[in-house]
Amino acid sequence: MLTSPPSFSDIKRAHQRIAQYIIETPVMTSKNIDEIAGCHIYFKCENFQKVGAFKMRGAANAIFSYRPEERVNGFACHSSGNHGQAVALAAKLAGSKAFVVMPKNATKVKVEAVKGYDAEVIFCEPNDQSRSQACQDVVDRTGAILIHPFDNYNIIAGQATAAKELIEETDDLDCIIAPVGGGGLAAGTSLIAHYLDPNMEVYLGEPEEVDDCYQSLKAGKIIPNKSSDTIADGLKTTIGQKNFDILKEHVKEVFTVSEQEIVDAMKLIWERMKIVIEPSCAVPFAAILKNPEAFKDKRVGVILTGGNVDLTKLPF
Amino acid sequence: MLTSPPSFSDIKRAHQRIAQYIIETPVMTSKNIDEIAGCHIYFKCENFQKVGAFKMRGAANAIFSYRPEERVNGFACHSSGNHGQAVALAAKLAGSKAFVVMPKNATKVKVEAVKGYDAEVIFCEPNDQSRSQACQDVVDRTGAILIHPFDNYNIIAGQATAAKELIEETDDLDCIIAPVGGGGLAAGTSLIAHYLDPNMEVYLGEPEEVDDCYQSLKAGKIIPNKSSDTIADGLKTTIGQKNFDILKEHVKEVFTVSEQEIVDAMKLIWERMKIVIEPSCAVPFAAILKNPEAFKDKRVGVILTGGNVDLTKLPF
Repeated sequence: MLTSPPSFSDIKRAHQRIAQYIIETPVMTSKNIDEIAGCHIYFKCENFQKVGAFKMRGAANAIFSYRPEERVNGFACHSSGNHGQAVALAAKLAGSKAFVVMPKNATKVKVEAVKGYDAEVIFCEPNDQSRSQACQDVVDRTGAILIHPFDNYNIIAGQATAAKELIEETDDLDCIIAPVGGGGLAAGTSLIAHYLDPNMEVYLGEPEEVDDCYQSLKAGKIIPNKSSDTIADGLKTTIGQKNFDILKEHVKEVFTVSEQEIVDAMKLIWERMKIVIEPSCAVPFAAILKNPEAFKDKRVGVILTGGNVDLTKLPF
Repeated sequence: MLTSPPSFSDIKRAHQRIAQYIIETPVMTSKNIDEIAGCHIYFKCENFQKVGAFKMRGAANAIFSYRPEERVNGFACHSSGNHGQAVALAAKLAGSKAFVVMPKNATKVKVEAVKGYDAEVIFCEPNDQSRSQACQDVVDRTGAILIHPFDNYNIIAGQATAAKELIEETDDLDCIIAPVGGGGLAAGTSLIAHYLDPNMEVYLGEPEEVDDCYQSLKAGKIIPNKSSDTIADGLKTTIGQKNFDILKEHVKEVFTVSEQEIVDAMKLIWERMKIVIEPSCAVPFAAILKNPEAFKDKRVGVILTGGNVDLTKLPF
């Protein structure tokens, strides 16, 4: 397992390791969107990824980085969202068992999705203490290996492969922008952009309501989120230490956006591009629309992180 | 202009004629959907087509089939939906003017879309008589050529190119299924399937509420719709005579589905495939789900006709 930030070789190896377990998702463009945004946007469609989100890349890399004899007791994680599904599916593909700790109030559809990949679901109270205790209990009971959703170099190397495909396929991007929550995708994206093209600018998009990354990079230390009140449910988490240390080296700027800006950007992509994306990945696009001068006429890569939304509870 | 059902050569020429004005849309598959349906489905994604629907193919073929000197007075049509946008854009690309008759109660977003392609919008009362009169008036006033949305062999040849791409790309389909409204797409699909593979079965999907095609093929003559009460707003029209004459030669069966079956099928595609499709093109997929024995283990081509929906008025 990696014990330092992934090198270029680490990311290339991760990509080879997971290639057969992931989808090489398409890159989409839209003249209409480009006209509105005033730049040329290349959308990496991880909404079409297995389990409906880029999280499959990191989970597959983390799990397949263990040798078969290390996988016998299975893998554990806590997640109310995409990471749980990704660990469940990756473990199943590896012939291992998955144990997913989920809050009692997780939606039925998410619980069923995890169970659909043959994982065991362990319910906890919806707070940090109960969640940590439940994880510890399951590890003690089963000997499973805990897979952290973002503060883990193998996860970061796996998530980096989305931007790797995007950059390699589109060629000559001026900049790339990803959303930031815990920072697994953000750290992986910023590293691979740096390795493939040191001149490429890396931006992040973050909801104003949970702007820990913006605040942390300004302060030079991690400033935890005080709120979790955002529609971008994948971005509520405070960034991890490993992630922060990478981001402070490689990120040019974090743009924050309001809740209304996220909803408007999400609706625009659904309407004009005819694809279903989750609120979290509307955040970078909202940041582009809000800061046209920063992106004017540039070739911009955007990671659309996933498409798992509750269609009965849309914000428009 | 074609005066008899398009031959194979006519459709090939139509395809060459419109190639530079349309998008060669992707064919998508989903293991998850295949498991649910019990067959192998190849979805032709015309929701990603220009103007968000296959109608661009027919309109472009009809308009570019006229010589430049014939295009000087422009083109007229009546449409509350995708055909109006398609004629507006195709006329613009041809350097001509478009006149689109729309009912007064058409949604603002559809009116704006047509105007966005520089077309002149003429409003009429929302009934057949007022619509016909408005079309006649505009033709008398401007000398524009009226482009019928489906009962027109050049339109049929253009719509056939969607299935042509699907069949040529996927190879070895056992059958193909399209929705049927006025019958432009249905007739084009059934013709090209017959030309490319005479053994390929052609099915149609139709809402129970507007089952004129089902009734007409059974009766051997056109039986107009008595109702227009369906969520599949692209399929409310009664089939045209030219369309009917083609369909009765080449269609194996019309499957009808209920409104709830349409909504359920639409939701399933949004959820599992992460794409936005309009209710009309959920109809063939609903037909597959309702008749699993007819499609069991087959390789099935499905035309997803478009993605123009009002996101603020979803049925789920």
